[in-house]
Amino acid sequence: MKKSDLLALLKDMSLEEKIMQLVQLPGSTFEEDAAVTGLADDKALKKLKTLAGSTLGLHGTDKLIKIQKEYIENHPHHIPLLFMLDVIHGHKTVLPCPLAQGATFDTDVARNGAAVQARETSADGVHVTFSPMADLVRDARWGRVVESTGEDAYLNGKMTAAMVEGYQGEDIKDIDHIAACVKHFAAYGASEAGRDYNNVELSDYTLRSEYLPAYKEAISAGAKLVMTSFNTLNGIPSSGNNWLMRDILRDEMNFDGVLISDWAAIAEMLNWGFAQDAKDAADKAIEAGVDIDMCTDMYSGNLETLINEGKISEKLIDDAVFRVLSLKNDLGLFEDPYHGASKERFEKVALSDENRKIARDAVRKSLVLLENKNGALPLKKSEKIAFIGPYADNIDLRSSWAISSDPETTVTIKKAAQEVFGKDSDVRFANGCQVVPNDTDLGMFKFHSDTWEEDNDKLVKEALEAADFADTVVMCLGEHVFQSGESTSRTDIRIPSVQKELFDKIKTKGKKLITLIFTGRPLVLDDIPEVSDALMICWRPGTEGGHGIMDVLMGEVSPSGKLPMSFPWSASQEPLYYNCFKTGRPKPLEGLSIFTSRYLDCPNEARYAFGYGLTYSQFEISKCELDKEVLNKSDLSDKITATVTVKNTGDTDAAQILQLYIRDVSGSRVRPLKELRGFKKVFLKAKEETSVSFDITEDLLRFWTIDNKYDSEKGKFEVFIGFDSVLIDDNISSFELM
Amino acid sequence: MKKSDLLALLKDMSLEEKIMQLVQLPGSTFEEDAAVTGLADDKALKKLKTLAGSTLGLHGTDKLIKIQKEYIENHPHHIPLLFMLDVIHGHKTVLPCPLAQGATFDTDVARNGAAVQARETSADGVHVTFSPMADLVRDARWGRVVESTGEDAYLNGKMTAAMVEGYQGEDIKDIDHIAACVKHFAAYGASEAGRDYNNVELSDYTLRSEYLPAYKEAISAGAKLVMTSFNTLNGIPSSGNNWLMRDILRDEMNFDGVLISDWAAIAEMLNWGFAQDAKDAADKAIEAGVDIDMCTDMYSGNLETLINEGKISEKLIDDAVFRVLSLKNDLGLFEDPYHGASKERFEKVALSDENRKIARDAVRKSLVLLENKNGALPLKKSEKIAFIGPYADNIDLRSSWAISSDPETTVTIKKAAQEVFGKDSDVRFANGCQVVPNDTDLGMFKFHSDTWEEDNDKLVKEALEAADFADTVVMCLGEHVFQSGESTSRTDIRIPSVQKELFDKIKTKGKKLITLIFTGRPLVLDDIPEVSDALMICWRPGTEGGHGIMDVLMGEVSPSGKLPMSFPWSASQEPLYYNCFKTGRPKPLEGLSIFTSRYLDCPNEARYAFGYGLTYSQFEISKCELDKEVLNKSDLSDKITATVTVKNTGDTDAAQILQLYIRDVSGSRVRPLKELRGFKKVFLKAKEETSVSFDITEDLLRFWTIDNKYDSEKGKFEVFIGFDSVLIDDNISSFELM
Repeated sequence: MKKSDLLALLKDMSLEEKIMQLVQLPGSTFEEDAAVTGLADDKALKKLKTLAGSTLGLHGTDKLIKIQKEYIENHPHHIPLLFMLDVIHGHKTVLPCPLAQGATFDTDVARNGAAVQARETSADGVHVTFSPMADLVRDARWGRVVESTGEDAYLNGKMTAAMVEGYQGEDIKDIDHIAACVKHFAAYGASEAGRDYNNVELSDYTLRSEYLPAYKEAISAGAKLVMTSFNTLNGIPSSGNNWLMRDILRDEMNFDGVLISDWAAIAEMLNWGFAQDAKDAADKAIEAGVDIDMCTDMYSGNLETLINEGKISEKLIDDAVFRVLSLKNDLGLFEDPYHGASKERFEKVALSDENRKIARDAVRKSLVLLENKNGALPLKKSEKIAFIGPYADNIDLRSSWAISSDPETTVTIKKAAQEVFGKDSDVRFANGCQVVPNDTDLGMFKFHSDTWEEDNDKLVKEALEAADFADTVVMCLGEHVFQSGESTSRTDIRIPSVQKELFDKIKTKGKKLITLIFTGRPLVLDDIPEVSDALMICWRPGTEGGHGIMDVLMGEVSPSGKLPMSFPWSASQEPLYYNCFKTGRPKPLEGLSIFTSRYLDCPNEARYAFGYGLTYSQFEISKCELDKEVLNKSDLSDKITATVTVKNTGDTDAAQILQLYIRDVSGSRVRPLKELRGFKKVFLKAKEETSVSFDITEDLLRFWTIDNKYDSEKGKFEVFIGFDSVLIDDNISSFELM
Repeated sequence: MKKSDLLALLKDMSLEEKIMQLVQLPGSTFEEDAAVTGLADDKALKKLKTLAGSTLGLHGTDKLIKIQKEYIENHPHHIPLLFMLDVIHGHKTVLPCPLAQGATFDTDVARNGAAVQARETSADGVHVTFSPMADLVRDARWGRVVESTGEDAYLNGKMTAAMVEGYQGEDIKDIDHIAACVKHFAAYGASEAGRDYNNVELSDYTLRSEYLPAYKEAISAGAKLVMTSFNTLNGIPSSGNNWLMRDILRDEMNFDGVLISDWAAIAEMLNWGFAQDAKDAADKAIEAGVDIDMCTDMYSGNLETLINEGKISEKLIDDAVFRVLSLKNDLGLFEDPYHGASKERFEKVALSDENRKIARDAVRKSLVLLENKNGALPLKKSEKIAFIGPYADNIDLRSSWAISSDPETTVTIKKAAQEVFGKDSDVRFANGCQVVPNDTDLGMFKFHSDTWEEDNDKLVKEALEAADFADTVVMCLGEHVFQSGESTSRTDIRIPSVQKELFDKIKTKGKKLITLIFTGRPLVLDDIPEVSDALMICWRPGTEGGHGIMDVLMGEVSPSGKLPMSFPWSASQEPLYYNCFKTGRPKPLEGLSIFTSRYLDCPNEARYAFGYGLTYSQFEISKCELDKEVLNKSDLSDKITATVTVKNTGDTDAAQILQLYIRDVSGSRVRPLKELRGFKKVFLKAKEETSVSFDITEDLLRFWTIDNKYDSEKGKFEVFIGFDSVLIDDNISSFELM
């Protein structure tokens, strides 16, 4: 449909019809005659079902085609219904969770993974996913770090932009693609004390320099939607924050797509006491520019009154409706309201070999090897191995956000190991304990593991017997799937104590100990790193978890993942992030530390730093050479090329991720100790060497200056290229911006 | 000296003389020929010693009189030297630490305690103390919470204003008084992750509504000095923050006294990369309005150059020097450069009976009784009692900031108990263990306890024997004196594990267990509250600690202290404070909590709330009655009177602290759940009842609104008067501001 046709349609719609385009109903409304909060009678419900512009949470080709068909028939203008769904890291084929994707430092992984999700979701009748989440996360207590690509704005920007590209393709009219929704605008990741839905307290400096850039990158990649965040920012709920949504999102970031509230977020302005009543909440949200009210009756119940009372103009509604209609049009729904969905297509693409292959590849690239003593890994086929722990044969390797997938399709460690060793081999498997005890409070969620009914003593006994048998024990431990995700903030971020007790018993056996950790967040690891011969973070690896992990364990491929978030010594170090500001009283590396910035009982730094991760080989890197010493600030095309020579000095072919860090030596505000400003993955065969270059341009040096604008400031900059964020003083080069 | 004389003096001084008035040297410079950082030769040092306007850290009448005499003789204009000292909660007679004083909710305690400090300090030759600290503190990880009166701006404002009154009296010319220095401007208490000297991230809203008011109160009480803080605020070091020091401190708060940097804080702008070099640091500080450079050569080495280069005007220097000269004049130093200091006076006032009595009274009022099961307390003389633990006979009951006091003067628990029971009674005492093991890293500090050399097994054995003997064990446990204070951030805020092990052994004896906790911060108490029959927080009680504690233990007086900071369940709840903002997704009191703001593994709330504390009696309180329902916003003299009836229903005479909380039901920004807006201590005999009223005026309802001004907003307010910050829904009244 042409823009002029859309405008004509808009003009022809009644006010009620228009307002209803801004209303999103929960999917259950369309599935059955379920009551909708705040609606008294069937007549009202029927009107909502006839006119509401979008719904969320539904999938299933046949069902959605049926709903769409009926809806269009009943709608006065036969405008199609928009189907949205939380497809965060997989609809049927579950990719590694976003935090794991962050660990790949590989935008292709993010792009290809999102394309898999788009194909499966689109074929299943869905048009929009509420992904990617571009929230910067610096606090491991917060459960939703699992949904982020990590603590660095630059990495998040690149990864989420790639996700947008993967979801949307060149044109979302293409039935292999869907629309992406960048969330949660803004700064949801900074919830105070890591408690979900808590207030966020940020200066303009940090908001602008650290939190906003990744949203901006994802939006610039063409994302069709943005979602408001659940938090308040400096005392103002996002869904009613005019400055944030109008000045920043629309005007500065030039976002002209659909802005949707998070679930019930407009109504929550009442809980906050930010809105006096429902009408006030609707007023504040529509004036802030929120186009769609997700799952409350704030808009459906109040917008008409607000117009009739002259409080808001119909133009405000028209603008919002036009954005919604444009999205439907961009998806081609006026021509094909099913967006190519069909049972045949769905069955062809869902969990296809190709999709599984992409997922498996992503797993292989996301695993982060933290310890590997005396070449404990890779395993040899000749070793007598016992896989022990509640993740040794666990079908739930998803995160809590892979809600539309089927755990039964998961390749567990056991299944993959049996493929490697043969079903009749004497590799042993023992759960050893439950992921968490039966009485653990995980909110309303039910457990998926089938080990719940078993007696713990029996499980431990089996595990000890398996350990006795083995040369090598692979401990498969980790968080419960419902210990990370939304509303799963934790103060104690260790593996469940029942598993630690199992680990402590197994370690007394003195066998070679390989520990795999399944987690949606950085964990406090206690003595696990010291006791283990090898330690690998497996995140929530998804459907192909078993395959990808076995590939790496067996040395099919060297691990290459790098931590996208700092792993702390203690949960009380949180928030913790590598690119913290300088302090006036830096703690000396050794010697007297009194009256310096420190903890008495804990290092300041992470236990495992951002960007850290081993391979099966060893690498050497030269000091980075800059091709010139001065960058010209007034010439935007000017650049400095930083080059290192990197060599795989070991005996194993491996990929290594080179990371470019820049330090702004002085500034009109205190600057971070270092900032990631580039990354490149290089694959080198054993003994092979290559040179790698990064271009440094002025835009990489910008921040929110004391003059309240994005700018760079003349002066000295230091440059470091390495394998992680721990700077080695001897390897630092420098240049002047003049 | 008249103002005109001061101005004439200023006019007559050379530029060098003037600049040197802005330079503060460490006391050691005057004691010996110690090298001063950055000074190359004796000639420079001699000039500094001749001209520097002030010094810090020295005390001792004879010494200071000698230094002053010599200094005035040598100074070209015979301007006296100013002596400053950190007297935080006691010079010789050590009062309870400021956090303990906060627990009294009693401004007389703060005022009288400061007066004691002023008398002793002044007599000992000192003119200025670096106290009070008005920093709002919300994070128990931060070591300097011991120096604050707690987490509430209202309480801090009242307490620190009283301290200023106590230090300064009616006129600081009075030789019984000294000048007070309000610190640390601003928001030092919000150091991220509780790590000292870390960056502070605050919105204008929170800075203005929560952090600034207490400084303002203390400044309005007439404080002669203000100190800049060590932290950066939103990326700007305080000592170079023009907006903070000029716009807020000077213009908005009308502060016209001396602004002094904290130790080396101007030079630290180099570490931050905020200043390019020393000259730039001096420039930024003097332009921001910092009058005195504490203990660096930034001012002495660079101000003259800056003037000669025309970078700053001599007027800027003159203004600062005039403030320093005015302070000296206000102290009467031009007439009596010794401010009445004499050995005779000092010996009369130091540790006088009167001072000790005031200190003892403060201890009695600062103890917070958290548990008292079945009337476990008070103790009866007939009980067979064993005092066990490293604080049973510990002379170091100070905080780390009572640096000029002598621990030998401390009345320990043992000493006080022997006074109660008689030296020959069979009350037992056993240390049981060291405060911390010998190998504990407490920075450069040495231990004061004489138990260090003892064998721990022997100590435990003695303790168990003492417990066997007793009916009642009083466990005396707590932090080491150097586990709180400056640069003592902790991630693990429990009592040292060696003491917890002792506690666990003693508890197996099954005796009546009274636990006393000596601490400079809120602690995580693990099972101590459940296991103990009574639990009392004793803070760092100071010189008269033993006496005050025994008075309460024996029932001489009922405890009446209330927590000035939330005691958490877990250190990972930090920052934690009672007056947090509302959330859009409040956790229900019971039932399903999924998708609400919560931790999976820990309550949101404090274990013991702000304002909580038991007495030896029971109290009942009525719902508060408001004398009218509407407060007139446009009539500033209007007020609502809130009245409750409170009754001591128990059998013990006791004081109770009534606390007025107000909730702003809705606002242009999200408002706190409740805010303390009044407190009154009432003493009621057993069965006695009285009525207590609070006036509610418009100024109590102000905050930093969306329009960026301090204002109240029309609408509904809820009022609650109770014994702590936990609101009881049935007792809430409300009014409208119209």
